[in-house]
Amino acid sequence: MSGRHHSGTDLSQCKPDVATGIRRMELDRVMTERPTIVRTIAAVREALRDAPRPIGLVPTMGALHEGHLALLARARADCATVVMSLFVNPTQFTGGEDLAAYPRDEARDAALARDAGVDLLFAPSSEEMYPEGFATTIVVGGLSEPLEGAWRGPQHFHGVATVVAKLLNIVGAQVAYFGQKDAQQALVIRRLVRDLDIPTTIEVCPTVRERDGLARSSRNAYLSDAERRRAVGLSSALRSAASAIAAGERDSATAAATACRELARHEIEPEYLALVDPETLVPVAHLDAPVLIAVAARVGRARLIDNLIATPGE
Amino acid sequence: MSGRHHSGTDLSQCKPDVATGIRRMELDRVMTERPTIVRTIAAVREALRDAPRPIGLVPTMGALHEGHLALLARARADCATVVMSLFVNPTQFTGGEDLAAYPRDEARDAALARDAGVDLLFAPSSEEMYPEGFATTIVVGGLSEPLEGAWRGPQHFHGVATVVAKLLNIVGAQVAYFGQKDAQQALVIRRLVRDLDIPTTIEVCPTVRERDGLARSSRNAYLSDAERRRAVGLSSALRSAASAIAAGERDSATAAATACRELARHEIEPEYLALVDPETLVPVAHLDAPVLIAVAARVGRARLIDNLIATPGE
Repeated sequence: MSGRHHSGTDLSQCKPDVATGIRRMELDRVMTERPTIVRTIAAVREALRDAPRPIGLVPTMGALHEGHLALLARARADCATVVMSLFVNPTQFTGGEDLAAYPRDEARDAALARDAGVDLLFAPSSEEMYPEGFATTIVVGGLSEPLEGAWRGPQHFHGVATVVAKLLNIVGAQVAYFGQKDAQQALVIRRLVRDLDIPTTIEVCPTVRERDGLARSSRNAYLSDAERRRAVGLSSALRSAASAIAAGERDSATAAATACRELARHEIEPEYLALVDPETLVPVAHLDAPVLIAVAARVGRARLIDNLIATPGE
Repeated sequence: MSGRHHSGTDLSQCKPDVATGIRRMELDRVMTERPTIVRTIAAVREALRDAPRPIGLVPTMGALHEGHLALLARARADCATVVMSLFVNPTQFTGGEDLAAYPRDEARDAALARDAGVDLLFAPSSEEMYPEGFATTIVVGGLSEPLEGAWRGPQHFHGVATVVAKLLNIVGAQVAYFGQKDAQQALVIRRLVRDLDIPTTIEVCPTVRERDGLARSSRNAYLSDAERRRAVGLSSALRSAASAIAAGERDSATAAATACRELARHEIEPEYLALVDPETLVPVAHLDAPVLIAVAARVGRARLIDNLIATPGE
């Protein structure tokens, strides 16, 4: 693996001497596929054995959007070698979301990864990740249970924790990047990595938004035009509550009611709208420290989530 | 850390040039404590950063006996650096076994580790391993449930799996050594390591026995002289069943009855005596392939386990 940033470079032009450290087979693959796409755990380990450190990992389920690209840009800036995983993890699909319907377009994702300077794209099958006899689950207690855990089932986060631990172990990354958009997921992963002493630094990057405030999400693809217009209600509700808190509101229920009025204005009925401690996810009644405001709602067939950390003003 | 085998060597005699790669502070520690004893995860990582590879880990709960020493000898023969952990893991004590009563003698264990050529002894506190807020559990399904899991509770193996994953991640060992005496534990750990893609090779070493056949165990220390004489019944029961199977017995129940008669002759009533598949632990009725015969019984206040793999004869 070259750690070189080859964003946009046509690797078919590579002279052999440019490819120092890339074994012949890998070079062939690089030159035909750009970036190197590998399907097996053994191939990842082989490709990364002599790759320059630090190695950065951006785990994705594909359907890349600006949020993922921000993670990749951050990884590219920080790390000598950038690995992206592309795996629609079946074990985290719960509560009726249709795994088969999840958007998939590997060729597009691979092209975006190439342009973002990804060195290695790991796109395994389910059978590679969960071979026959697979029997291990990582349970992160407490953090997996409220909010998304209550609506999707805590199995959702058991699935996330287990697959992320696998990916970190497979890649042996020094750093891995996740989005703040999935705030609870980021907390579960931080807890997991700390508790199991996995030697990877977890970086959580800011949510990337559309101009009107809608958080970027692969699931936005499910929205019709009319639903897209209503969907802005999630972020505007969060902002309205955050503004009230910044302006001096100290009562959590009152701030929540402000957000719910904004949701209603967009004909959105939330699954939850919660003001919780940003580290423990325990509900907060009196607002005297930064608070995580989290919301989930169905808009059409899309189930959307968003969050914001609000800081009490004077 | 030096990877040198310094069994029995008086390290206070070390010339500085012998200590290539040992930082001054570590050297001081080596020279005063032999082997280096560290209490924190950070100190393990620091000490091993430039240690010669491969690193071998022998996880123990202390109270070292010949079984542990065989693991250490194997690690010393295979690896450039040998790490032993000494941690009486509270989360694997279930079903009424007294954690506080478990035999502890760190000075003796450290001396034995020194003589076995251990380079680094990791002896953390419970607070170091399970700091406030710790919330993660690894569950290995299936294998954790029968036999020991049925008697001690599957939580026993959840505790084992979780602490072993932590130790492997802390040490970053290329190889870790476990005893076949704890056959089910070895299977759970192999499954865990395979399922989570932990880049460590698991070596399972033969059970070490007393002359009369009793498997070495830290819990043998609980036996009175009279109980010690009865305790041989476990291994002789396993051998009697294995002999019957080698001689042509094909019926699992008949072979089990043979073993139970031998146990009864020693006034031992087993918690279980089971003939199971050596990989899946599923009970076997007809014996046409190697079978794991596993037994657990209380002898006085000691709860003892033992096992044997028996191969059907002609």
